[in-house]
Amino acid sequence: MNNPLNRRTFLTQLSAAAIATGLSSIPFISSSKSVNPQKKLGIALVGLGYYSTGILMPALEKTENVKLVGLVTGTPEKAKKYGEKYNIPKENIYNYQNFDEIAKNPSIDVIYIVLPNSMHKEFVIRAAKAGKQVICEKPMALNAAECREMIGACQKAGVSLSIGYRLHYEPYTQRIMQMAKEKPYGDIFMVHASAGWRMGRPTEQWKAKSKLGGGAIMDMGPYPLQAARYSTGMEPIAVTAQMFNSDPKVFDGVDETTTFQLEFPGNIFANCSTTFAANVNFLTINAQKGDYGLNPFSGYNGIHGFLPNGEKFDFPEMNQQAAQMDEMCLAILEKRPCKTPGEEGLRDMIIIDAIRESVRKGGIRIVL
Amino acid sequence: MNNPLNRRTFLTQLSAAAIATGLSSIPFISSSKSVNPQKKLGIALVGLGYYSTGILMPALEKTENVKLVGLVTGTPEKAKKYGEKYNIPKENIYNYQNFDEIAKNPSIDVIYIVLPNSMHKEFVIRAAKAGKQVICEKPMALNAAECREMIGACQKAGVSLSIGYRLHYEPYTQRIMQMAKEKPYGDIFMVHASAGWRMGRPTEQWKAKSKLGGGAIMDMGPYPLQAARYSTGMEPIAVTAQMFNSDPKVFDGVDETTTFQLEFPGNIFANCSTTFAANVNFLTINAQKGDYGLNPFSGYNGIHGFLPNGEKFDFPEMNQQAAQMDEMCLAILEKRPCKTPGEEGLRDMIIIDAIRESVRKGGIRIVL
Repeated sequence: MNNPLNRRTFLTQLSAAAIATGLSSIPFISSSKSVNPQKKLGIALVGLGYYSTGILMPALEKTENVKLVGLVTGTPEKAKKYGEKYNIPKENIYNYQNFDEIAKNPSIDVIYIVLPNSMHKEFVIRAAKAGKQVICEKPMALNAAECREMIGACQKAGVSLSIGYRLHYEPYTQRIMQMAKEKPYGDIFMVHASAGWRMGRPTEQWKAKSKLGGGAIMDMGPYPLQAARYSTGMEPIAVTAQMFNSDPKVFDGVDETTTFQLEFPGNIFANCSTTFAANVNFLTINAQKGDYGLNPFSGYNGIHGFLPNGEKFDFPEMNQQAAQMDEMCLAILEKRPCKTPGEEGLRDMIIIDAIRESVRKGGIRIVL
Repeated sequence: MNNPLNRRTFLTQLSAAAIATGLSSIPFISSSKSVNPQKKLGIALVGLGYYSTGILMPALEKTENVKLVGLVTGTPEKAKKYGEKYNIPKENIYNYQNFDEIAKNPSIDVIYIVLPNSMHKEFVIRAAKAGKQVICEKPMALNAAECREMIGACQKAGVSLSIGYRLHYEPYTQRIMQMAKEKPYGDIFMVHASAGWRMGRPTEQWKAKSKLGGGAIMDMGPYPLQAARYSTGMEPIAVTAQMFNSDPKVFDGVDETTTFQLEFPGNIFANCSTTFAANVNFLTINAQKGDYGLNPFSGYNGIHGFLPNGEKFDFPEMNQQAAQMDEMCLAILEKRPCKTPGEEGLRDMIIIDAIRESVRKGGIRIVL
């Protein structure tokens, strides 16, 4: 009985399926669709850094399809603190050594990997081998080869693999995706996207360390990259990139700032940047009839939309992570792929590999 | 009597000098300072393309220190049309062959070169040799070596050389320059600037032709480059750059799109782009306490300013070109350098040369 999903009655809500496959004319919050409370999936968070404890744990108090039932951490103090705070049974708390025993724990359906990037591959594969459904934070892994291994491991184990692209589950981004299809302002010519934050100096952040899969391109880089892709609804055909590091003692073998340029079919062009040097967050799309976009575009909240001629658009504030986990778990319950499966993470990582190849080769154009 | 300025009484208005050298707390329109009407300088426009006939000629109906008295054109129909429209005496109309005879014409004090970029050097030098004060449109020339020749020729002839950086004469840009000095929102970390317009395809525009000094980097490129410099108040120490051309039949040996990245002292970074593929125009400055900038930032009108926390700022609409020519001519009358002399054009062209060197060498970093 390792896979508790076998014991469940699967819902087949056509309207819920529509959430995953199409875009309604007014984007809505997918977490409004929920299964019967007693059907909530049990989730374990692996890695108890800030994103787990400060963001995902509070979000899991609001989810309707999933509840926090397990913790995996290398730090006993964190296990105690958060175990007590969220009434996690002791038998549902694991460390990195005994993690594989989670296979025998029927109360844990889903494992969410929130570790430093360098640990994603190992723990996704171990979670899959344990027969659990897997969610993995972005960036999916250190490179495309790792992503392919992870996808293969999940396929072999017959479990789902979802990547934590939370913006796909919130309405501003959904509206931008919809506009890529409907082109309400005519052809799209150019996309400008930048996401970054000012990291304290000096820092002990793992995100500043090469060994742990740090660097701006790995941390916030996926946001402008994703934005260029979903704003156009297309895949890039070539990339050029540049990396900058003003202080190698602080940024240990990683990029402090990366700029990259993406060419899309039909002469659409994206100029992107990501950085640890500045708080920056904007997405501007230049279309035939004017500019539209989001500013900021990738915040946990406080996103605002703008349209040509100074018009604005806004949606009610929501918990993006709750919506993401609810929809991912609904997809699991309904045995269908979620909107952001491993393949979506792989697509980004192929481009990030090309970004690094361009940098390594002195900035040359890499055909994708 | 080749230099009519010898016959003039020069004004020494301290307040006007302040305009040129300092920044008041509220930027103001420099054209409000004017000489006695009968002291207006006479200006001849060289090259009667759209910028001359559609922009500068109407502006010259509003200037207080300078008036349109001469035309230089290679097209007899244009000479007739605009000569009649603006009551230009026949003896003040020249073509490119007899242009040097302008030296003998005492009614023409200033010559404004508004030709394709490839012709700037020749006509600036010929104007200087004719003993006339010279204004030249941006970009100043095809490369830094040409700029140096032009500066040398004007110095030798004892005439002034001003570059048509009109934004230095309008209050939004002046406010951004002021903020670079005063840093009201703390340290500046990053600048994002992009300027471009969608060129019709196919095109017969000289701006799409290499021979005439075309290309996006030459046309709108100086705007983000200037913006990065005046937003930080600093000179870049290194540059990387990329050029793109989706259709070499349309864009004949020139860049359709150029992206470039500038590193400034103190770990300040600018990500810039310019293009003929999209209507784009924004300047965003990421500072410690938030983002500010102009959107658009380089229009002839319709510029808007924004500050952190959603505040906006605006100034009354004005004629930028009239303000520019009035202030340049006031500087000529007062025998002082204007705000944007040839040396300012040279600074940009040194960086544009480095941008092209980076591209030619496959995108590598060029130390300035």
